[in-house]
Amino acid sequence: MIWTAKSLEESENGFRRNLINSITGFKSLALVGTLSDAGETNLAPFSQIIHVGASPPLIGILFRPHTVGRHTLENILQTRFFTINHVLEDFVVEAHHTSARWNQSEFTACGLEEEYFESFAAPFVRQSVLKMGCEFTEQLDVQSNGTQLIIGRIQLLVLPEDAVGSDGFVDLKKAGTITSAGLDAYYRAQKIARLSYAKPTHRPEVI
Amino acid sequence: MIWTAKSLEESENGFRRNLINSITGFKSLALVGTLSDAGETNLAPFSQIIHVGASPPLIGILFRPHTVGRHTLENILQTRFFTINHVLEDFVVEAHHTSARWNQSEFTACGLEEEYFESFAAPFVRQSVLKMGCEFTEQLDVQSNGTQLIIGRIQLLVLPEDAVGSDGFVDLKKAGTITSAGLDAYYRAQKIARLSYAKPTHRPEVI
Repeated sequence: MIWTAKSLEESENGFRRNLINSITGFKSLALVGTLSDAGETNLAPFSQIIHVGASPPLIGILFRPHTVGRHTLENILQTRFFTINHVLEDFVVEAHHTSARWNQSEFTACGLEEEYFESFAAPFVRQSVLKMGCEFTEQLDVQSNGTQLIIGRIQLLVLPEDAVGSDGFVDLKKAGTITSAGLDAYYRAQKIARLSYAKPTHRPEVI
Repeated sequence: MIWTAKSLEESENGFRRNLINSITGFKSLALVGTLSDAGETNLAPFSQIIHVGASPPLIGILFRPHTVGRHTLENILQTRFFTINHVLEDFVVEAHHTSARWNQSEFTACGLEEEYFESFAAPFVRQSVLKMGCEFTEQLDVQSNGTQLIIGRIQLLVLPEDAVGSDGFVDLKKAGTITSAGLDAYYRAQKIARLSYAKPTHRPEVI
């Protein structure tokens, strides 16, 4: 089937929201942990997480206007620190539940445990296996619709030693990381292959 | 194991590139098709693709400085149109191969077929099942490292009718979409569950 800009615009709002949220494909999934100025912890799920650079190590998160994620954004702009915690299948329901409009910390509300590393000033999720602490570096405002891309620099990275290969590649299956799609669907991943660096001289090979 | 900003900075470049590219989790994967001013087709793989908004339907792609993807960026800025084509397991090797430094169109070099819809001025990939045509709307420059986020508005969306649920959710398995990790790893996804809209009053349920 073919949708045009016009037929998309005329489609029902909820339908279009699900459709357009689905068509970027499978997404990252992580819980972002923050502290408010008053010291209250906050936790919220994000799937618009992108690799921005390796040197220095930078990560980007896109924030939507007027969503539950706004507490997270306010906290980051106030305190400048946040954590990114991969979600495991074991606690996918709890992770999803953090997206509700809670009047208390999502950690206690959803049964996830706070964890702190060294002097890093934001809460990690103990149940998560691959997690990182980031410091805010930059905010970019998307003029087209008011979303905001927040760039963070990785200050602390915690992950299982046996998941890291000799070349630095991380076996996400060993960290238990899952992936998401649309607004509410969760998937485990099954490896097809790693492929060799692409050159015009020969077809890529499985490595 | 724990990495700090300092130990990351001191790690070997290739190791750090693989490591940091891995830790955002599973990613979208699509081939971006463009036309140059001279009418030459170009195709390149991207995994930093994010949902920006549903109304209007907006998608973002992050471009790295000095990569093979620059032809794509130049073409988009010149012609203002591009296509995003999901990758199937069937042609994952060909898709990966488009990342090599070709002196000719990646379509013919890698054995992928051009397809055109209506009057849309950029090439689609015939082998892809879920694909969309976008018009450039905005460019955001990341000051921290010179990467650029390009925002495109969806003008045309092609996907299998039986993959679209009555609520608009797209079953990506029916479109054959795969996911990627790191710089060179590809995965198929297996559904865990869709979960109900999260409310504080009860635990989310499988829908």
